[in-house]
Amino acid sequence: MPTYTAPTRDTRFVVNEVLDLPSYGNLPGFESATPDMIDTVINEAGKFCAEVLAPLNQIGDQEGCTRHADGSVTTPTGFKQAYEQYRESGWGTLAHPEAHGGQGMPHVLGFVVEEFMATSNQAFAMYPGLTNGAISAIVAAGSDKQKETYVPKMVSGEWLGTMNLTEPHCGTDLGLIRTKAEPQADGSYAITGTKIFISSGEHDLTDNIIHLVLAKTPGAPDSSKGISLFIVPKVLVNEDGSLGEKNTLACGSIEHKMGIHGNSTCVMNYDGATGYMVGEENRGLAAMFIMMNAARLGVGIQGLGQAEVSYQNAVNYALDRRQGRALTGPAEPEAKADPIFVHPDVRRMLMDGKAFSEGMRALALWGALQVDLTHKAQTEEERERADMLISLMTPVIKGYGTDKGYAIATDMQQVYGGHGYIQEWGMDQFVRDARIAMIYEGTNGVQAMDLCGRKLARDGGKAIQAFFELVGDEVAAVKGTDLEDIGTALEKALGQQQQATMWFMQNAMQNPNQLGAGAHHYMTMMGIVTIGLMWLKMARVAAEALKGEPEDKAFYEAKLVTARYYADRFLPDCGALRRKIEAGSENLMTLGEEAFATAA
Amino acid sequence: MPTYTAPTRDTRFVVNEVLDLPSYGNLPGFESATPDMIDTVINEAGKFCAEVLAPLNQIGDQEGCTRHADGSVTTPTGFKQAYEQYRESGWGTLAHPEAHGGQGMPHVLGFVVEEFMATSNQAFAMYPGLTNGAISAIVAAGSDKQKETYVPKMVSGEWLGTMNLTEPHCGTDLGLIRTKAEPQADGSYAITGTKIFISSGEHDLTDNIIHLVLAKTPGAPDSSKGISLFIVPKVLVNEDGSLGEKNTLACGSIEHKMGIHGNSTCVMNYDGATGYMVGEENRGLAAMFIMMNAARLGVGIQGLGQAEVSYQNAVNYALDRRQGRALTGPAEPEAKADPIFVHPDVRRMLMDGKAFSEGMRALALWGALQVDLTHKAQTEEERERADMLISLMTPVIKGYGTDKGYAIATDMQQVYGGHGYIQEWGMDQFVRDARIAMIYEGTNGVQAMDLCGRKLARDGGKAIQAFFELVGDEVAAVKGTDLEDIGTALEKALGQQQQATMWFMQNAMQNPNQLGAGAHHYMTMMGIVTIGLMWLKMARVAAEALKGEPEDKAFYEAKLVTARYYADRFLPDCGALRRKIEAGSENLMTLGEEAFATAA
Repeated sequence: MPTYTAPTRDTRFVVNEVLDLPSYGNLPGFESATPDMIDTVINEAGKFCAEVLAPLNQIGDQEGCTRHADGSVTTPTGFKQAYEQYRESGWGTLAHPEAHGGQGMPHVLGFVVEEFMATSNQAFAMYPGLTNGAISAIVAAGSDKQKETYVPKMVSGEWLGTMNLTEPHCGTDLGLIRTKAEPQADGSYAITGTKIFISSGEHDLTDNIIHLVLAKTPGAPDSSKGISLFIVPKVLVNEDGSLGEKNTLACGSIEHKMGIHGNSTCVMNYDGATGYMVGEENRGLAAMFIMMNAARLGVGIQGLGQAEVSYQNAVNYALDRRQGRALTGPAEPEAKADPIFVHPDVRRMLMDGKAFSEGMRALALWGALQVDLTHKAQTEEERERADMLISLMTPVIKGYGTDKGYAIATDMQQVYGGHGYIQEWGMDQFVRDARIAMIYEGTNGVQAMDLCGRKLARDGGKAIQAFFELVGDEVAAVKGTDLEDIGTALEKALGQQQQATMWFMQNAMQNPNQLGAGAHHYMTMMGIVTIGLMWLKMARVAAEALKGEPEDKAFYEAKLVTARYYADRFLPDCGALRRKIEAGSENLMTLGEEAFATAA
Repeated sequence: MPTYTAPTRDTRFVVNEVLDLPSYGNLPGFESATPDMIDTVINEAGKFCAEVLAPLNQIGDQEGCTRHADGSVTTPTGFKQAYEQYRESGWGTLAHPEAHGGQGMPHVLGFVVEEFMATSNQAFAMYPGLTNGAISAIVAAGSDKQKETYVPKMVSGEWLGTMNLTEPHCGTDLGLIRTKAEPQADGSYAITGTKIFISSGEHDLTDNIIHLVLAKTPGAPDSSKGISLFIVPKVLVNEDGSLGEKNTLACGSIEHKMGIHGNSTCVMNYDGATGYMVGEENRGLAAMFIMMNAARLGVGIQGLGQAEVSYQNAVNYALDRRQGRALTGPAEPEAKADPIFVHPDVRRMLMDGKAFSEGMRALALWGALQVDLTHKAQTEEERERADMLISLMTPVIKGYGTDKGYAIATDMQQVYGGHGYIQEWGMDQFVRDARIAMIYEGTNGVQAMDLCGRKLARDGGKAIQAFFELVGDEVAAVKGTDLEDIGTALEKALGQQQQATMWFMQNAMQNPNQLGAGAHHYMTMMGIVTIGLMWLKMARVAAEALKGEPEDKAFYEAKLVTARYYADRFLPDCGALRRKIEAGSENLMTLGEEAFATAA
């Protein structure tokens, strides 16, 4: 059975040393994130996830969720009790504002908890995870009454929430949705339609589930400009906040999925269900994007999570399993064979896992800090800059983080050889669970177009210029130091990205397909450069720490080796990606559909 | 439900036009492969696989195999009837020598059938597929009596065969096996031990199953030099060839796997079972490699198969599913949305699928021709050259073919968006089935070491030099023609491979880890170059055909576009791979195991 240990040492390194969270003590909410509190959160959340959630992960996969004849759904054995523990511990309230019953702590710490949860049990983590998206939308666009009625109970975890976007015939193109919202005399709406792929759509964890549903009012424009957002509770809420009648909505079935079996992914049928409009009519898409952006960062963290947990297990297996001898001669001559850890190709896969997971963790938590600064930085300029950076980076964290997370999970499964294919060992679940993250909350192709089609050009390219400066400054800072080799490698990769950006500017105006044809390559390249930036940051911090003869010298030395490994083995892809982008759309778009048909 | 159409047009193109099979009519067996016969085989085998095997693929995944209390195993609904049809049609006997009851046709045609079978139903194809490996070993190393007793019935498909190598504690390192073979008074051996991951280990398709089992005789050297190979039939065979007593062996359980559920992957328990030594004592590894090499080519074809079938379905979905509008303006303004086929990122994935599948098909069938020439070419020199080339290429076909096959299947699943994750659509099965091919018959890391550690250096690098010449000649042939651009791109990629080869020569002698650290990258690079060679060959044939105003002009024009797409989007990776190889083993091997432990 697979195991999980929360990487608390590495997390403390990123939070305290790389991001230097304690230095932000002057910002609201950060003052309570004292070094002691940071340690406590990291350690206790790590313990909860490792001890309570991780042991339920394989059970969730094997049992899945069960829908009963009355439409009710039972989650896998142990999920309900674990959820109660989760609620009692207050992990879910950590980063929510105190005004909504939260603890008002930095999002950086919220993301730490989110990572540990997504890593130890992705399917479980989705129940509260999506609720956060729903809360964001109500907070941003809802009325005071709505905030008061729903938000505190969702923050406390008494109720959970969902996001209902997709319909059988539309996912990406939400302008096509058919779910109807008929205005009622009392100001509410009667919601009718079918939604699919609804994560946590029905379950036994809470007494109520607050569905956020996209629907169209009568006569609304027949496009994405005609979508409104509604709160549709599973159980209607009385004036005094108590639960009233059951609403006319139900889980029609549970989808049979490749993975995340522990999460109840439902077909939801709304049959004139009572709903309440959130924000303005026909402005649902904007509110939806608020949910979506929060959710996308969470999905990027899932990519990290499955890479991390599969890496941890692959390391254990590689140290335990003995096959063959080291190429340089027996490492353990007294044994019949050496651990496979000695084989360079096994080590290559493990180093890839280590370099990605540690680098991605730094990126995710750096991203969380930008979210905090967006709301809490002292000057408007700082707030805008943080917002600009996290907007730019969200599709990269989601898209590259999950593409690579899946690739790493696949490699970690490979370390197991034949045993990796056998379900008891648990590696195949990590791969199957990781697979969804490339798809939901906008496929990675959609992320790539969000990055290249929207974010790059916004405000005359201000955000991407700021990113280039960020990398350039970090490179400049190591010139003439022992880390210059890493800086030079990153500078070269950055140069490739800058060239590709220029190529888009010169070619995409006449023909937008030139952009579309290279968008996914560009997102990958930017992911590689961004994590390269994180490695250079980490290397600087480690080199600095090593000057002081620290107690865990080996930890910092390993950071330097891994940073160089990253420069050796990840950064070179940027050159190839630039060439692919510059190949343009011609040979990609030329063939008509008949050329794709299989001819007899 | 997914569909499958055998790509008969493309197969005829490769067999007749690219390989020019009819021109080998002077070789034994090839004379019966007349153009008419080639057409008949391709069309009828395609029909059988599309109509009989493909519809059972999803059923096999859902039902799996069932082991009963008495140890017997039932295959999924329909498999037994399909197997009977397969036997009656004689597809299995096609490329076996007439002396063994086969039809003596070229392996090229045998591989065509193997591709269609592996593509339409990989789990089913494995039952006869592994039998071919077992036959090869008996033919190569068995006694006349053994050949007479077992081979004709295995060729005819009356009995099926298996390969029993792996034990719970050893797979790659077969020197560690513990299964014992005690000599008996009658010259047979009593085989005792447990074997795992035995594909088709027990089933209801045939009355007898001929297990080929690796075991150690008493006092055998404690290494891979102490392994012998045994025939251990499920049911003992009487002198007259009739079935006698049941042997003392049994399927202990069926493994729970990520995929290929339709194949009965068994734990096999041998309890003093009667076995007959094949070839010489302690020479089992050599005989095993005969099985293995045949099997490895078959596994490479599985990589092609899952790429092809997932590609076909992704094309259908992309033409059917409507979301959003083309970047250049509505393609079908009268409809509410355009088919997702118009989106460049969807097209990128489809073109990747097309470029890989068609290129890999050419490579697999070119490989099959080398197998034929190894046995049948007129001069010793030609036979040796073919043998040298296919030995060099086997790990590339297996390793790169399956790595990329899995990546393509994953991309084709991505085309489906959320529906790709739902089992009913069948795309997740293609990914799960494709996953095993990177692992079995030697993990792809083992393939990479076979290529770089054994094959590159053999005979002073004669084989790789021959490969470089092969590519160089093809590049030279297009100089000054309309195809020069493709040739130049291939030449550049070849240059990267040559540099990497040189780097290995200069660095691996002092430190073999330098080789191990780059082996997987090298295998990938060589796969890319090799399929690039196939695309240049195909482009030449297509350009030639277009001079004659052929009827299906569009088919040949598509070949030219796809060859250029391949040059645009696949070949550039070679530069990055060379840089990774040249980064060497230092940063990869430096960290000790403590650096990989997750620290609290």
